[in-house]
Amino acid sequence: MDRYLLGIDLGGTNLRIAVVTLEGKLIEEVNVKTESDKGPHHVIDNMIKICEGLLQKRNIEAIGIGAPGPLDSKQGIILSPPNLPGWDEVPLALMLEKALEKKVVLDNDANAAALAEATIGAGKGKESVFYMTISTGIGGGYVYRNQLIQGANFCAGEVGNMMVNRDGPTHYVLNIGSLESLASGTAVHRLGKEKLGITGHAGEVFTLAMNGQQEAEAIVDTMLTYLAKGISNIVHTIDPHMIVLGGGVMQSKEYIMPILLEKVNAYLYPQLRNRVQIECASLGTKAGVIGAALLTQQA
Amino acid sequence: MDRYLLGIDLGGTNLRIAVVTLEGKLIEEVNVKTESDKGPHHVIDNMIKICEGLLQKRNIEAIGIGAPGPLDSKQGIILSPPNLPGWDEVPLALMLEKALEKKVVLDNDANAAALAEATIGAGKGKESVFYMTISTGIGGGYVYRNQLIQGANFCAGEVGNMMVNRDGPTHYVLNIGSLESLASGTAVHRLGKEKLGITGHAGEVFTLAMNGQQEAEAIVDTMLTYLAKGISNIVHTIDPHMIVLGGGVMQSKEYIMPILLEKVNAYLYPQLRNRVQIECASLGTKAGVIGAALLTQQA
Repeated sequence: MDRYLLGIDLGGTNLRIAVVTLEGKLIEEVNVKTESDKGPHHVIDNMIKICEGLLQKRNIEAIGIGAPGPLDSKQGIILSPPNLPGWDEVPLALMLEKALEKKVVLDNDANAAALAEATIGAGKGKESVFYMTISTGIGGGYVYRNQLIQGANFCAGEVGNMMVNRDGPTHYVLNIGSLESLASGTAVHRLGKEKLGITGHAGEVFTLAMNGQQEAEAIVDTMLTYLAKGISNIVHTIDPHMIVLGGGVMQSKEYIMPILLEKVNAYLYPQLRNRVQIECASLGTKAGVIGAALLTQQA
Repeated sequence: MDRYLLGIDLGGTNLRIAVVTLEGKLIEEVNVKTESDKGPHHVIDNMIKICEGLLQKRNIEAIGIGAPGPLDSKQGIILSPPNLPGWDEVPLALMLEKALEKKVVLDNDANAAALAEATIGAGKGKESVFYMTISTGIGGGYVYRNQLIQGANFCAGEVGNMMVNRDGPTHYVLNIGSLESLASGTAVHRLGKEKLGITGHAGEVFTLAMNGQQEAEAIVDTMLTYLAKGISNIVHTIDPHMIVLGGGVMQSKEYIMPILLEKVNAYLYPQLRNRVQIECASLGTKAGVIGAALLTQQA
């Protein structure tokens, strides 16, 4: 009988659950609203029901969950993530293991996406891949020889809190001058609201910039300067074989990439210029759920 | 017959050559002035003579060299390092291989020291170790499961060029706001000269600070703020099991460490505070030559 994996991508808005082959091929996907405002018990009950349906149809070997951080991957516990209000110290892995009688592993959503992009996505075949997601926040994951490097405290890849500047907006947990506070979608949105009076999301600023609106161009340029500093810092720390960029902000990749690459090169040691591979993610919104399933196959 | 390794630590000032066991125990060491002003041929001839003497006495399996960067580790070529004027594209590994008929490997001096500290020094037994040397410059190396991670372009660990600030002194190759330009011995020396009129080296500033001289304290405090930002950035990128600090500046470790640790913790995500292990190097000036020998044993 063929063996499969179950991946769960638990987001603040969407809950995706998918059946995936051992090689990371997506076979079947269920996509519902998380309804996180109804609390963890409602969401987990719903999650278990969907899983039960999928488990009946196929021979599922193990279940992997990608969830918003902070979390304790070793113990499988969700620890008060800002994107899941009310989820305080929820032992999600244990709860699913009991209900579904399968091995369950938990890691943060950026690590799950990093694993998928590094092993079967844009970074396939590369010895080391650093994945960054640039969205509401900035997160990442580091994959070396197809193994996720979680770090001593499961905080490897948490580059959103990397400092690239002395000043910047204050935040309840991020450092002043942090990459996330200066180069995320939220940073672009904040400046777009202040300087352009936009009412929607950060995408509006990118659209205005693409259409040549000067103030919008300046906002994006500033954001990309900080992003380039962050990427250059990662290169000078681990010099990965590829940097893969994903997340909502990369929907504007045609506009962003040429500017970003030029800026990154300017911040690199001369011998590194034009030699660092920086690519856009290739699995789109499926990276999280596929990567969650692949978490179960890590040594 | 017992098997040994030869390590060569080629510095701008000192040339150390040592016989080391396969486990990294130092057996015999020759320490001479490099005389780098007499050019590469003089230095290499001298190096070969010392090696020949050591090779006659013991069964040497392979030779490893740690040298100032930039260099091409794969091809064994020294590429115009600022600390070895006149060494332009010198195929050092090949030259020694021909003269001594042994396998020769070359890597940068910080990587060599990192390997020694991570495997038999302060970081022994840790899954992942990031070593930083804070001296005239700032360099580093990343060791994961006893293997040096060199990076796609042999630039892993080059954290001296990491940007931690928007401004700072200009430099012919380093980024403005780079860690090395703000937190190295050179940075302390520059400020000591400007603000205190010191005539010797950076150590004077540390001595004054230890004796409570307020301006010296302020210089060291500023330098440690930047160093703490750099360390925190490394933690939020790879979350190593230990950070090991070496280099000349660490001679003032009793004064530096309490201040530095407090600053690092303030820049970490709350869940990381007081959980990151930061230790001083334990092999002293021997790390480079021992690590050079151990380079030959890398997979």
